[in-house]
Amino acid sequence: MVIDGINGIYSAVGADALVVREHDLRFYLTKFSSSFGILIADGKKAVFYTDARYLEAAAKCLESCGIEVREYPRGVKLCELLEGYKTLGMPLGRISAEDYLTLSGAGFEIVDSLPAFESAMSVKSGDELANIRLACEATDRAFTELLGEIKEGMTENQVAALLEYLMRKHGASGTSFDTICAFGANASVPHHETGATKLKFGDTILLDFGCKINGYCSDCTRTLLFGDDRKHEDFKDIYEKVLRAHFIVKEKFRSGMTGREGDALARDYLKGFGLDKYFTHSLGHSLGINIHEKPSLSPNSDEVFADGMVFSDEPGVYIAGKLGIRIEDTVTLQGGKVVSLTNTDKKLLIL
Amino acid sequence: MVIDGINGIYSAVGADALVVREHDLRFYLTKFSSSFGILIADGKKAVFYTDARYLEAAAKCLESCGIEVREYPRGVKLCELLEGYKTLGMPLGRISAEDYLTLSGAGFEIVDSLPAFESAMSVKSGDELANIRLACEATDRAFTELLGEIKEGMTENQVAALLEYLMRKHGASGTSFDTICAFGANASVPHHETGATKLKFGDTILLDFGCKINGYCSDCTRTLLFGDDRKHEDFKDIYEKVLRAHFIVKEKFRSGMTGREGDALARDYLKGFGLDKYFTHSLGHSLGINIHEKPSLSPNSDEVFADGMVFSDEPGVYIAGKLGIRIEDTVTLQGGKVVSLTNTDKKLLIL
Repeated sequence: MVIDGINGIYSAVGADALVVREHDLRFYLTKFSSSFGILIADGKKAVFYTDARYLEAAAKCLESCGIEVREYPRGVKLCELLEGYKTLGMPLGRISAEDYLTLSGAGFEIVDSLPAFESAMSVKSGDELANIRLACEATDRAFTELLGEIKEGMTENQVAALLEYLMRKHGASGTSFDTICAFGANASVPHHETGATKLKFGDTILLDFGCKINGYCSDCTRTLLFGDDRKHEDFKDIYEKVLRAHFIVKEKFRSGMTGREGDALARDYLKGFGLDKYFTHSLGHSLGINIHEKPSLSPNSDEVFADGMVFSDEPGVYIAGKLGIRIEDTVTLQGGKVVSLTNTDKKLLIL
Repeated sequence: MVIDGINGIYSAVGADALVVREHDLRFYLTKFSSSFGILIADGKKAVFYTDARYLEAAAKCLESCGIEVREYPRGVKLCELLEGYKTLGMPLGRISAEDYLTLSGAGFEIVDSLPAFESAMSVKSGDELANIRLACEATDRAFTELLGEIKEGMTENQVAALLEYLMRKHGASGTSFDTICAFGANASVPHHETGATKLKFGDTILLDFGCKINGYCSDCTRTLLFGDDRKHEDFKDIYEKVLRAHFIVKEKFRSGMTGREGDALARDYLKGFGLDKYFTHSLGHSLGINIHEKPSLSPNSDEVFADGMVFSDEPGVYIAGKLGIRIEDTVTLQGGKVVSLTNTDKKLLIL
């Protein structure tokens, strides 16, 4: 299986050798995680070079899959290791200009391998989906536990830290991105930098959070109200519309539709209330090993969605200095339809 | 001040325009943090392009420093924005091969800006040092609080998560790297991946942790013993030697010495006991905005250390399958001598 995946990418790229150093791409192909490693595959054999720290674990994990494991020879440059090949499959958008110049200077021609990876990584295998489900479950459990712990006077930082702690407690190895916690009008910046603002009665709370389990990500956003000071009629009204936009996508998006069509489902609904101008980002992005993968659900995405893809459904409305509402689940396509992987309640919660 | 820093790097690089997109380099020059931004400086003016999310905050922070703030024009490519310049100062080891090919294809010549940044960033200003001190203090406080909370049966993940939570509680915006927690023989892998191993009586605990405050990092490692089952005579003996190696560096390293000389202070001491072959990494690395900066303290570092540099002093001994001991403080050079910035007790702690 592992070797089939490697050969699949190798064939799609069409270079003499596939050279994979980037952690996410290496992990995708080998299922082995290490801070240093180079996979070189040439259609005949696949060799994984790593250093002394990982040799034993790499051999245990990879040799039964038909991958040869070798210690990276000290003092040897990458271009020396690649002698005999003419064209190299490497991700042009990821390798540095410095490496590119060194390798082309040594006579190699670089063929971009990234499109082949992006395409293969977009449809998740059963194992990958199982890991994403685990991450989504930990995310849900942590959020549910957090609700009982939110108190007046806590800072955004404290709430974010507690949520991260709870995700770890439920099995996460870490977060899949920096947790966003925004109180009140801070939420009107979609990517607010979590800070020292203190929670007070009547604040809204926007939480955007996710974790990693076995190398796979989850992503979830909830917006809630901390005490109802009866000054939130606008907020409540817009909340219901964002929530409806979120559900319309779940109800109507289908395998075979493009990212643009998915995005339009939410955007067109909000447009009916003049709210589309406050929906300042895309509807969603794919996720897996990375928190942002291809394809995306955006107004300029022609990419076609298919069963097994995993992505976020996250419409939002942001009115500068006033409010920010985003409701997000990680979802997948199964039998042509959307299935939600994060599942805590989305009805407006008033703590 | 800010504009002097920009002009200093501009002059050192010697290209028509300095183009800075990388978060750490942008933040170093502007002290403004945003997920998207491009600083373009040409010796006459400095312009910071960002998107709608950051315009207001960027203007507030940067315009008083003489930096013009503009919204990045939609649909305009970077090479169009740079029309009129011939040579561009950009970090070759950081920009992608794809960007390099696009820009050279459009006729630009790229001059590597990274050496100028690395050199400037190595000596910290008073403000930078103050932020690193804050991060080190939060690190110390969190560790001290953690000690009372470590219980038998906790997993490595739980201990790491709790430590991270406590650093946030003491003001950190996040960690400066993935916290390492290794119980027992797991510590013999210097960069052990924190996992589900449960703590039991008689285990050693290695904790490598750090946090960020105002964009600046701390780094600290402690190795301790969870209950003394009287089977740790070797461990205790080696612990004292690693600790002595750590202190020898603090006592004898001086401004004006090279990274190699610093590394040798610890390595030569451990050699006296045949332990140098188990000291499988460098003595230390500089840190600041990034957790790993130049110069380093390693057997092949000819770089000269100076007052105001901030780095780690972290000798370690790792015996495969048996034990791992590392003792690390973040330190700086002041008046020619080493001053410690993390300061929790390093005497062997038995919980």
